[in-house]
Amino acid sequence: MDINQTYKNFVQKRHKIADLSYILAVLQWDMEVYMPSLGASKRGDQVGTLASMLHSKSLEVEYVSILTELNSEIEHNPTIEEGIKVNIKEAYKDYVKDSKLDNEFVERHNKLISNSFHAWAEAKNKGDFSLFLPFLEDVINITKEKQERIGFSGTLYDALLDEYDPGLTTESLNGVFEVLKKELIPMIQVLKERNLGLKNPLEGQKFDTIKQFELCKEIAQILHFDFNAGRLDVSEHPFTTNFSSQDVRITTHFNPDNLIDSIWSTIHEVGHGLYELGLPSSEYGLATGQYCSLSIHESQSRFWENNVGKSKEFIEVIYPIFKKYFNDQLPDSQEEFYQFLNKVEPNLIRIQSDEITYHLHIIIRFEIEQALFDGSLKAKDIPMVWNQKVKDYLGLEVPNDSKGCLQDVHWSHGSFGYFPTYTMGTLYASQWQYYLEDTSPFGLNVGQGNFKAILDWHRANIHSYGRRYSSGELCNKATGKALNPQYFIDYLKQKYSIK
Amino acid sequence: MDINQTYKNFVQKRHKIADLSYILAVLQWDMEVYMPSLGASKRGDQVGTLASMLHSKSLEVEYVSILTELNSEIEHNPTIEEGIKVNIKEAYKDYVKDSKLDNEFVERHNKLISNSFHAWAEAKNKGDFSLFLPFLEDVINITKEKQERIGFSGTLYDALLDEYDPGLTTESLNGVFEVLKKELIPMIQVLKERNLGLKNPLEGQKFDTIKQFELCKEIAQILHFDFNAGRLDVSEHPFTTNFSSQDVRITTHFNPDNLIDSIWSTIHEVGHGLYELGLPSSEYGLATGQYCSLSIHESQSRFWENNVGKSKEFIEVIYPIFKKYFNDQLPDSQEEFYQFLNKVEPNLIRIQSDEITYHLHIIIRFEIEQALFDGSLKAKDIPMVWNQKVKDYLGLEVPNDSKGCLQDVHWSHGSFGYFPTYTMGTLYASQWQYYLEDTSPFGLNVGQGNFKAILDWHRANIHSYGRRYSSGELCNKATGKALNPQYFIDYLKQKYSIK
Repeated sequence: MDINQTYKNFVQKRHKIADLSYILAVLQWDMEVYMPSLGASKRGDQVGTLASMLHSKSLEVEYVSILTELNSEIEHNPTIEEGIKVNIKEAYKDYVKDSKLDNEFVERHNKLISNSFHAWAEAKNKGDFSLFLPFLEDVINITKEKQERIGFSGTLYDALLDEYDPGLTTESLNGVFEVLKKELIPMIQVLKERNLGLKNPLEGQKFDTIKQFELCKEIAQILHFDFNAGRLDVSEHPFTTNFSSQDVRITTHFNPDNLIDSIWSTIHEVGHGLYELGLPSSEYGLATGQYCSLSIHESQSRFWENNVGKSKEFIEVIYPIFKKYFNDQLPDSQEEFYQFLNKVEPNLIRIQSDEITYHLHIIIRFEIEQALFDGSLKAKDIPMVWNQKVKDYLGLEVPNDSKGCLQDVHWSHGSFGYFPTYTMGTLYASQWQYYLEDTSPFGLNVGQGNFKAILDWHRANIHSYGRRYSSGELCNKATGKALNPQYFIDYLKQKYSIK
Repeated sequence: MDINQTYKNFVQKRHKIADLSYILAVLQWDMEVYMPSLGASKRGDQVGTLASMLHSKSLEVEYVSILTELNSEIEHNPTIEEGIKVNIKEAYKDYVKDSKLDNEFVERHNKLISNSFHAWAEAKNKGDFSLFLPFLEDVINITKEKQERIGFSGTLYDALLDEYDPGLTTESLNGVFEVLKKELIPMIQVLKERNLGLKNPLEGQKFDTIKQFELCKEIAQILHFDFNAGRLDVSEHPFTTNFSSQDVRITTHFNPDNLIDSIWSTIHEVGHGLYELGLPSSEYGLATGQYCSLSIHESQSRFWENNVGKSKEFIEVIYPIFKKYFNDQLPDSQEEFYQFLNKVEPNLIRIQSDEITYHLHIIIRFEIEQALFDGSLKAKDIPMVWNQKVKDYLGLEVPNDSKGCLQDVHWSHGSFGYFPTYTMGTLYASQWQYYLEDTSPFGLNVGQGNFKAILDWHRANIHSYGRRYSSGELCNKATGKALNPQYFIDYLKQKYSIK
C-alpha cells in the first residue's frame, strides 16, 4: 500500500470525526454557559442525535478498513515516523472501544448515568445515601460491564485508571499515596495548630462581581491566555473546553462573599486553557494534537493555580492589580493576604480544602474505589468507611453524608479512577517547578512574573508533544527524572517552613 | 399502507433533520456572537462537515421513500388532516430542491458566495463597483442555474420571490409598488420641507452602553419576550435565530452616540423573536412549526418596531423607563423625542432611513432585480440605473457606490428576491394594526401598553398556524381581507397628518 496516501486519507477522516466531537463540545458549552432553561429539552435531543452520528462515523466501514490496514502496517514497518505511529495506535484504541460498545449498551449507559445523576443530586440534597445506593450499585456494575466488553489486562481498577491516565496503575498509586499519607497527615496537624488564630482579612465584605470579572480577565491576560483564541465566561462550576486549539473556552464563577474563589478558580482554568492553546494546531483531530492525560492536564492547572498562583512572589506581582479593583477592601499587608490564602486547616469538603488537606480526600476516594472494584467493599458500606477514614486522616467527624461521601458528583457519572489524576497532576506540577527553579538553564522563580518564559518551557516540553508519550515518559523527558512525590513534599516543607 | 405509522416514522426522521439544522444554527450564532477571531478557520470546517451531513440526511433512502409514499398518498386520500398534508408537501418541496442540488453544485455555490462576499466587502470599502462586478455576474448566473436545476413555472424572478415568500409574484409586487411609489414620493417631499428645522435632541451625547443593554432587556421583557426561552446578546449586526421554539436568540448592537438605534433594533428583533417563541413547539421540525414566510416574519418585527414602537402612545408608556436609565440626557419633552424618532428625510442608506423613505430603497432594488433577471439590464449598468432612480425617487445625488448600490450585502450572497419581503412585511403590519384597532373585538390602541393582548392576537391568528397557509391566505384569515397597501398609506397619512 501507499502508506503516505493511506495515512492522508486517515487524517482526512479523523478531521471529520474531530469536527463532530468539537461540535458536541460547542453544544455542551452553550448548555452550561448561555442556554435559557427551557431550551434544555430539545437540546438534549440534538446532543443525542449528534452523539449517535459521531458514534457511527467512528465505526464507518471505510475508515475502519483504512485504520486497520495502517495499524497492522506500523507493527512491521520501522520507517514510519513516531508521531504517525502514535496517531494510528491511539485511533485504533478508540476504535476498539467504540466497536465494543453497541448502541444498546450506550443508550442503557447514558440513561443510567442520567438517572443516577438525579438520584445523587437528591440524595446529596437530603443527606440520604440510601437514595443514591441502588443507582451507585448499578453504575458500578455497568462500569465493570463496560471494561469487560472492551477487555483489559491487569486488574479492573487498573483499566479504570488507564482511561484517564494511560499507564497509571493501582500498584504505583499505592506506593505514591503511602508516602503522601505518611508525610501529609502529621503536616496538617502541625499547621492546624499553628494557624489557630489566623483570621480572614476579607471577612464580611462584599466584592462586586463585575469588578471580579474584570480582574479575572486581567489576570488571565497577564498569564498569556490569548483572548484572540479563547474566552472567559461564567458558569455554575468552572470548567475548560475547546473546539480546536485556537478556540479555547474557560469559565469561572462569582460569589460576592468570596473573592479568592473566583480568582484562583480562574487561574486554575487558565492553566487548563493554556495547555489546550499550546497543543499543535496542525495536528487537529490526531493524538499528537491532543492532551497527554488528565494527570498532565491537571499538572498545568495546579501549577498555575498553586505553585505559581499561591506563591509569595506571585502575590507581590499581582497585589497592585488587586488593589486597582478593590483598594479599600484589601488589607494593606500582602503578608496577611498571603497567609490567609495559604491557611491549612482540615476541611470536610474537597473543593474547599487547602493544597495539603486536598490530597487526603483524593486518597480516601482512591482507597474506597480500589476496594469497591477488588470486591472487598460493598457500596452500602461506603459511608461507614468514608467517615472512619476522614476521622483517621483529617481528625474530623462527618456530620452527614452530604458533607461526606455524597459531596462529589463523579461517581454518579461512573467516573471511577478519575480522582487520582488530581493528585498526580499536583505531583507533576511540583516536579516542573523544581526543574524550572533548580535544574533548568532558566533558574526561574516561578512566582516572579516571568510568566512568558515559564509558559514557553511548558509549550516546548509538554504541550508540543500532544499524546506522543505517557505521563511518566513525558515527565522523564521534560525533567530528566521519573515522577517523584518527594518534590511535592519538599515544596510543602519549604513553603510552610516545616522541618 | 398504515398512514399513521408511516407518518409517525416521517416525523421521527424530520426530528433528526431538524436537530442537525438547529445545531448548525448554534454554530452560526456562536460565530457571530462569542467566537474568538482565531476560532474561525476550524469552525468553518466544522460547519462544512455538519452541513454536508445534513444534506445527506435529507436525501437518505429510507426517508425519501417514506416521504414519496406519503406525498402520493395525500394526492388521493381526502381524510388526511390539513396540517399533516402541509407537513408532507413542504418536506417534499424541500426534498426536491435538495435532490436537484448535488454536492458538486453546493460546493461550487458556497465557494462562489464566499469569494463574492469578500469581493463585495472590498469593493464597498474602496467604493469601486468594478471589483465586485465579475463576482456579481457569476452570482447572478449561478442563481439562474440553481433555479433551472430545481425547475420552476412562471418567470425566473417569480421563482426567486417564491423562495422567501411562497406565492408572491412579480406581477402582484408591481401592482403594490406602483401604488406605493405614487403615494410615498410626494409624501416624502412634503415631510422633508416640514422637518427642515427639526433637531436631534440627543445630539452630541454619549450613552453608556451597559445601561443601553439593561434598558434593551427591560423593554424586551415589557414586550413579553420570555428570557426563560430566549436571550439577548450583542453582535455586529442585529439578528434573530432559534434552536427550537423554546430557545430563541436575538441580538442587538450598541453605539454610544446613538441610543435610538440600539433600542429600536432590539424591538425589531424582539418582534422576530416573539414569532419564533409563538410557533407551536409540538410541531418541531415540521412546516406546521415553522414561520410562514419572510414577509410574515418581517410583519412581526416591523409591527413591534414601528406600528407599536414608534407610536406616540408607546413613547408615553416607555419614556419613564428611558428616564430611569438616562434621566439627565433625555429631553423633558416626550413630544420632542417622538418628533425626532419619526423624522422623515430622504437618506442614501436603506438601514438609516425613516419608515417611509425605506420603501423606496426596496422598490429600487426590486426594479433592478427584476430587470437583471428578465435580461433587460446588465450587471455593469447597475450603478448608473441605481443613481438615476435615487435621484428620481429620493431627490438625492449618490456620491459613490459605497453609498449607492454597494451598500447592502444581500446580492453578494445571491439573495435576489429577498428585499421585497421587507416592504411586504410592513404592509402586513399595518393591516394587523388596522384590524386590531378598528375591526377586532379588542379595539386596541397598539401603543397603549396592552402588549399581552396584542401579542395574544398574533399568537392565535399568526404564530399558531406555522406554515399552514401562504402569506396572503394568512392575511385573509386573520383580518378577513386580502392584503391592501392602502392600510399602510392610511397609517402614514394619519400619523404624519397628511391630507
